[in-house]
Amino acid sequence: MNILVLHGPNLNLLGLREPEVYGKETLEDINNMLRALARDNGVELRIVQSNHEGALIDALHEARTWAHGVLINPGAFTHYSYALRDAIAAIEKPCLEVHLSNVHKREEFRHKSVLAAVCVGQIVGLGWRSYTLGLTGLIQILQSSALPV
Amino acid sequence: MNILVLHGPNLNLLGLREPEVYGKETLEDINNMLRALARDNGVELRIVQSNHEGALIDALHEARTWAHGVLINPGAFTHYSYALRDAIAAIEKPCLEVHLSNVHKREEFRHKSVLAAVCVGQIVGLGWRSYTLGLTGLIQILQSSALPV
Amino acid sequence: MNILVLHGPNLNLLGLREPEVYGKETLEDINNMLRALARDNGVELRIVQSNHEGALIDALHEARTWAHGVLINPGAFTHYSYALRDAIAAIEKPCLEVHLSNVHKREEFRHKSVLAAVCVGQIVGLGWRSYTLGLTGLIQILQSSALPV
Amino acid sequence: MNILVLHGPNLNLLGLREPEVYGKETLEDINNMLRALARDNGVELRIVQSNHEGALIDALHEARTWAHGVLINPGAFTHYSYALRDAIAAIEKPCLEVHLSNVHKREEFRHKSVLAAVCVGQIVGLGWRSYTLGLTGLIQILQSSALPV
Amino acid sequence: MNILVLHGPNLNLLGLREPEVYGKETLEDINNMLRALARDNGVELRIVQSNHEGALIDALHEARTWAHGVLINPGAFTHYSYALRDAIAAIEKPCLEVHLSNVHKREEFRHKSVLAAVCVGQIVGLGWRSYTLGLTGLIQILQSSALPV
Amino acid sequence: MNILVLHGPNLNLLGLREPEVYGKETLEDINNMLRALARDNGVELRIVQSNHEGALIDALHEARTWAHGVLINPGAFTHYSYALRDAIAAIEKPCLEVHLSNVHKREEFRHKSVLAAVCVGQIVGLGWRSYTLGLTGLIQILQSSALPV
Amino acid sequence: MNILVLHGPNLNLLGLREPEVYGKETLEDINNMLRALARDNGVELRIVQSNHEGALIDALHEARTWAHGVLINPGAFTHYSYALRDAIAAIEKPCLEVHLSNVHKREEFRHKSVLAAVCVGQIVGLGWRSYTLGLTGLIQILQSSALPV
Amino acid sequence: MNILVLHGPNLNLLGLREPEVYGKETLEDINNMLRALARDNGVELRIVQSNHEGALIDALHEARTWAHGVLINPGAFTHYSYALRDAIAAIEKPCLEVHLSNVHKREEFRHKSVLAAVCVGQIVGLGWRSYTLGLTGLIQILQSSALPV
Amino acid sequence: MNILVLHGPNLNLLGLREPEVYGKETLEDINNMLRALARDNGVELRIVQSNHEGALIDALHEARTWAHGVLINPGAFTHYSYALRDAIAAIEKPCLEVHLSNVHKREEFRHKSVLAAVCVGQIVGLGWRSYTLGLTGLIQILQSSALPV
Amino acid sequence: MNILVLHGPNLNLLGLREPEVYGKETLEDINNMLRALARDNGVELRIVQSNHEGALIDALHEARTWAHGVLINPGAFTHYSYALRDAIAAIEKPCLEVHLSNVHKREEFRHKSVLAAVCVGQIVGLGWRSYTLGLTGLIQILQSSALPV
Amino acid sequence: MNILVLHGPNLNLLGLREPEVYGKETLEDINNMLRALARDNGVELRIVQSNHEGALIDALHEARTWAHGVLINPGAFTHYSYALRDAIAAIEKPCLEVHLSNVHKREEFRHKSVLAAVCVGQIVGLGWRSYTLGLTGLIQILQSSALPV
Amino acid sequence: MNILVLHGPNLNLLGLREPEVYGKETLEDINNMLRALARDNGVELRIVQSNHEGALIDALHEARTWAHGVLINPGAFTHYSYALRDAIAAIEKPCLEVHLSNVHKREEFRHKSVLAAVCVGQIVGLGWRSYTLGLTGLIQILQSSALPV
Repeated sequence: MNILVLHGPNLNLLGLREPEVYGKETLEDINNMLRALARDNGVELRIVQSNHEGALIDALHEARTWAHGVLINPGAFTHYSYALRDAIAAIEKPCLEVHLSNVHKREEFRHKSVLAAVCVGQIVGLGWRSYTLGLTGLIQILQSSALPV
Repeated sequence: MNILVLHGPNLNLLGLREPEVYGKETLEDINNMLRALARDNGVELRIVQSNHEGALIDALHEARTWAHGVLINPGAFTHYSYALRDAIAAIEKPCLEVHLSNVHKREEFRHKSVLAAVCVGQIVGLGWRSYTLGLTGLIQILQSSALPV
Repeated sequence: MNILVLHGPNLNLLGLREPEVYGKETLEDINNMLRALARDNGVELRIVQSNHEGALIDALHEARTWAHGVLINPGAFTHYSYALRDAIAAIEKPCLEVHLSNVHKREEFRHKSVLAAVCVGQIVGLGWRSYTLGLTGLIQILQSSALPV
Repeated sequence: MNILVLHGPNLNLLGLREPEVYGKETLEDINNMLRALARDNGVELRIVQSNHEGALIDALHEARTWAHGVLINPGAFTHYSYALRDAIAAIEKPCLEVHLSNVHKREEFRHKSVLAAVCVGQIVGLGWRSYTLGLTGLIQILQSSALPV
Repeated sequence: MNILVLHGPNLNLLGLREPEVYGKETLEDINNMLRALARDNGVELRIVQSNHEGALIDALHEARTWAHGVLINPGAFTHYSYALRDAIAAIEKPCLEVHLSNVHKREEFRHKSVLAAVCVGQIVGLGWRSYTLGLTGLIQILQSSALPV
Repeated sequence: MNILVLHGPNLNLLGLREPEVYGKETLEDINNMLRALARDNGVELRIVQSNHEGALIDALHEARTWAHGVLINPGAFTHYSYALRDAIAAIEKPCLEVHLSNVHKREEFRHKSVLAAVCVGQIVGLGWRSYTLGLTGLIQILQSSALPV
Repeated sequence: MNILVLHGPNLNLLGLREPEVYGKETLEDINNMLRALARDNGVELRIVQSNHEGALIDALHEARTWAHGVLINPGAFTHYSYALRDAIAAIEKPCLEVHLSNVHKREEFRHKSVLAAVCVGQIVGLGWRSYTLGLTGLIQILQSSALPV
Repeated sequence: MNILVLHGPNLNLLGLREPEVYGKETLEDINNMLRALARDNGVELRIVQSNHEGALIDALHEARTWAHGVLINPGAFTHYSYALRDAIAAIEKPCLEVHLSNVHKREEFRHKSVLAAVCVGQIVGLGWRSYTLGLTGLIQILQSSALPV
Repeated sequence: MNILVLHGPNLNLLGLREPEVYGKETLEDINNMLRALARDNGVELRIVQSNHEGALIDALHEARTWAHGVLINPGAFTHYSYALRDAIAAIEKPCLEVHLSNVHKREEFRHKSVLAAVCVGQIVGLGWRSYTLGLTGLIQILQSSALPV
Repeated sequence: MNILVLHGPNLNLLGLREPEVYGKETLEDINNMLRALARDNGVELRIVQSNHEGALIDALHEARTWAHGVLINPGAFTHYSYALRDAIAAIEKPCLEVHLSNVHKREEFRHKSVLAAVCVGQIVGLGWRSYTLGLTGLIQILQSSALPV
Repeated sequence: MNILVLHGPNLNLLGLREPEVYGKETLEDINNMLRALARDNGVELRIVQSNHEGALIDALHEARTWAHGVLINPGAFTHYSYALRDAIAAIEKPCLEVHLSNVHKREEFRHKSVLAAVCVGQIVGLGWRSYTLGLTGLIQILQSSALPV
Repeated sequence: MNILVLHGPNLNLLGLREPEVYGKETLEDINNMLRALARDNGVELRIVQSNHEGALIDALHEARTWAHGVLINPGAFTHYSYALRDAIAAIEKPCLEVHLSNVHKREEFRHKSVLAAVCVGQIVGLGWRSYTLGLTGLIQILQSSALPV
């Protein structure tokens, strides 16, 4: 089973940036947790981080013929990138949206996700556990269906 | 570790009601999964379902002196019960909100949770897995802190 | 043919409360008219009034295995009880919404029904005749289809 | 007793147009039901259909000195014709608004009636029965008051 | 100098309809006042009343080659007839909008005129004097400019 | 008959300020026209201009025991001075609101008058003629009723 | 003189819950203050607290034939319970709404009371003094009118 | 192949009215271009212009049994005529909406078409070419499907 | 203890103006009640009424070095005077907002106070008792804290 | 004559992605149609597709000194890319916006184009014909004016 | 070169009031900085502070025949004083708006300036440097044009 | 002292694009002014312009370990790039937002900056002087604090 992990803008600064909001783990720490979890489940991961909306879209397009599902933390693109939304819809793979912080406790603009309606689900507010629980959930969902790409 | 599981209105009909939206598992099926998961983690559960907003509030109040955390699927109260919100805030326990369906794919009124801002986080759209991943996540969060009630 | 008649909050005060708005008939007067009409049509009625949202939901749930249709005056729950809405949708029985007063002539908040979209129809503003015409219409609709519960 | 029946724009296509929404009865079928019902109650009907807002207003004006009440399905004028609203208010006759389909299940713009506040009441969603129950209700209301035109 | 006087829907009922709102003068009374005033000022009037939006537009179009200005009480078309607005703009004649009642004291929807921005001005709330002062003002404005049609 | 004429903020600059919007007559020119008109009708005028909201309110209060009516151009206070609104309502005299320019052709914020609902009527867009027609209309209205202060 | 004191949801936790918002007095402390104040004024109190909207409505209905007025802290029901609003309107007794905290300093949703328009008045932000001043004010208002139930 | 061409209100003034907005071609000029284009494609046209909403609806109804498609410039009815919308939906023929001017550069109210959702598409802003390209496109679409009326 | 009492615009007309809304007591009557109450509590009052927003701000500024608290009825400034709001915030004294009438029963614009968030609390709807209860409450609050100016 | 053809995000997946919405032609199919059409008209095309907003802006900038017009399908950037809007405005070339699907039949967010106001016009809903008609129209417009770059 | 410096309401308390928001410099400190800066540039200043909207308008009017430009910190009038806006527009002098605090970090109502559209520009959030940079910028702008008053 | 200067999309066209809005200086002209000013103050500048949102974010990230402050003209990203907002917040350096034109005089969408709340301040409308005053102000702010990166 192949899964694409996408990290959106500014997530490369994790651990360095506003730790009281996003936690003290670095992106590499989280990626390592995800890799370990994937290995235990016989899942192959590709991990992409970019601050460029277009690069994230390109990565989703490439995943069309390789991945069975997508785990995505879209960062601030969550709130306005209809292009990312179309890309998720276009590749027709189960996509799970995760957020480190509880976006509903923060500024008004963070309460609205323009992506949620084209994802299978959403996990928010559990810190790095949003990622690990998200990957676990995504694997379970993919396992419960047939898997041809 | 003690955890209260709260099921809001109409969830007693799970499996019977609109299975294409909510899945074919009954509430008892889900409760049994949660009980097994709790047992494996040495966690004691209390499970309450009610169609009465007041009964859910009463259950939260009782949990103040017993539970370390709360797993709640507030059903339709998600969208208007500020009284439930105040009860969650009042008991000062980590509370995790879960939804079976992806509320963001459904009617506009389901996109807004008046509870999310007083919960630690939210898991939506993963069917019964929203519950099991939610309980797993809640246990992890509680284990990472000191536990006196 | 079995029909549940549900009266929402404050309707127990009918005849006593603001007669210029709601008419001078008591709830018992209206129930008697409905019972007579039911008897003439060979219909069995169960009539429930409650000021408790949860009790109305419970009554709808019980009707799942007994009633063929529901006549409901949801009172003020009309305007915010998404839990009641979910209950109506969940039992999958034709439900007809009635109001004594013309809600569209009154305060802005009364113009919006959160239930109307899951009912088959709505009759408003005809005083107690909203109930009797509503029961008549509901019986006609049920008679025009097959009736297994 | 004299009653004007007004059918708004596009209702001449009933039975031909979107039968899954409006039913398969033609306007003539419905008119015949209304005529039979009127005859049984000793009521004289005048029936007018027009796609012209002005023609409906003219018909209402003419009804001032002849009719005791009005049964109206305003079609799409429901949602914007303040001129029709003024006409209804101006003739000071009980007017009952009916709709074949449940407008509250359809597009957002159909949820708002600019006429409802100047009518005595509204019946929606019961197909041709909205008309027959409407005429029945209107006759009952007119019978319960004095009738000088 | 030639002036078109346009009366919109329901104004034919003036004096008969809601006299506490619109006054007890009939439309003919008002027309006579306007005719007298016109005669005193050497002005020729054409007066049109219609409940048909299209007829009012046609009348405006005909005025293009005859009238120097227009006095219009658009009735309820004030609030939604963008077609009338376009007609007023298209004929490029000074147009003065008048209302008998003070629309700002009435329902919210009457506070907005979609025509005001293409008229030279507006007089509201002075009863039949809105018309006579309006005609006076329009004549003054036309006299202060050159008059070729 | 006694009439108070109130000019709001910035009207002292009339003729000097944006003549393409407000015309080239000075405030004194307009006051002279109003004085002549008053004299011809046996009316006594008091004229007050102020850029101070409080001074306009004080002037209205003083008019309670002297004036029979008020002609007011509230300038920009039109759009937000609820204190001026309360003052107009408090003195219980017919008040006529006038504007030189057609406020409906200008910025959005100028389309809303918070005063209009407590005035008898409004004349807008006719330049200085808004004042002279306004005074004429106000005198006519006052003459048609009894006049004790 | 008989007065019903109603405490809404979560007020049973007073003193225990968020003391920086609601103060450190318990509900029993406040009730004792109110009882003392009532005794000094020869007033009989009935005090009800419930987390159930329906129970509060029932209590109001029972008060119809016993109480002369009602002192109510509706808690979070303030913001959405139109059923409670109808109950207050239905019993036709002076009802005074009180809040411990200054709701206008808190979340946006707390700024709107759907009950205020059917109460005689409102006291907010004075901690337990909102209750004691509220009871004092209610007694004064009731004393200034005739008192038959 | 038969096509109805509908021109809405004020379009009879084309060439005469605001040429900087709508171009200097008259409606007859445009009709002639359309007739030539139709002739070249073996298409029969019927062309109707009316300022009367009802007349446009009537024309659409008549087209039900004759036309294969409709080319419509609804003029200002674009923005509010839900009756026209229902007529377009009712006749179940491909309908293409065209506008001479770029409505998105003009007043806010022109940005919204209540008809667009029931048309196959929309061409705006290309002057008379909106018509000729529209007719070309409509013919192509009709040619690509079977043509029984 | 020193307290400033501020009366906003139009309150000088109390007793004279709309007595059905504001009561029949004059401002002097209310001031006398407040003076008596102050005397009984050993409190010194300064009382200022003005129709000028600036004068109220000046009075608040002067109170900085003399008063321990402020009792304010801001009149219509309640709804828009952000300058008054800043003045209240700037002097850092407990300020209590009172209103004679129940603003929530009146026009929509009166439901919003731009000052409430910077006051300690609000009393509305109790007529002159809003003032006396307000002064009592303010004295109690000030007595419960240390008092250096 | 030189024309730039710009395809926005996700359009590289045409034919592969949601064919029921976007048609079964690939982007290369459409480009070939455009190239053939250009060749027939003696027009030189440059065609750019990118999922990167910045790359589309760069391409527009480069077109400043080469192209006479632009045909653009902005994909989802239509709804939020004000940067693209500024780029279109900045290069001061006629730009025509095309969409394959009828955006007005789809999600609410697709009804608004932030680009339309700076384009000459818009063609929506005609599938690949939106492109070919768009190119035809753009060529016609450019031919009707002088062509120096 | 002559420049008017206007300080709006509550700015007289600078240094005394909420220093964490507005800084610890007094208004006199700031005025001295501005005077020094003016002297160095050969500019004559007049400085006015008032809590009275009318006084600020009067000062602007007086500046018409003396000043070449205006530096204004409108305080809270920024958000609602359309009268001040009209005064700025009326005197037709370059006016620069400055704010000490970053209004965009504060309450929602502070994000909107009703004056900005009639000023040449705005400097916010730089503390007293907003004033000194503002004066510098204004002088530069005035120097770059001809200077007759 | 090190400062990053960021120019957003389309600013590379300065001087070429809409000079009546943005001035006739090219970006290089402005950069040279900034370099001269920096040199005079012993400040080192890095200057980046990009039409790619991601490139601007990358540049901000790189500035974390080098720059003491940021001067940014975000161009149209001002109005929607929450990703840029997060990047500014993440690097925790004083950031000053500048705009050449007075955005408040232009289209509605330009009135809102999603970045302003995370910047120290904003300078708008002063043409190239927005940049030079902005750099001056930023240097002053940085000089007034300690400077370790």
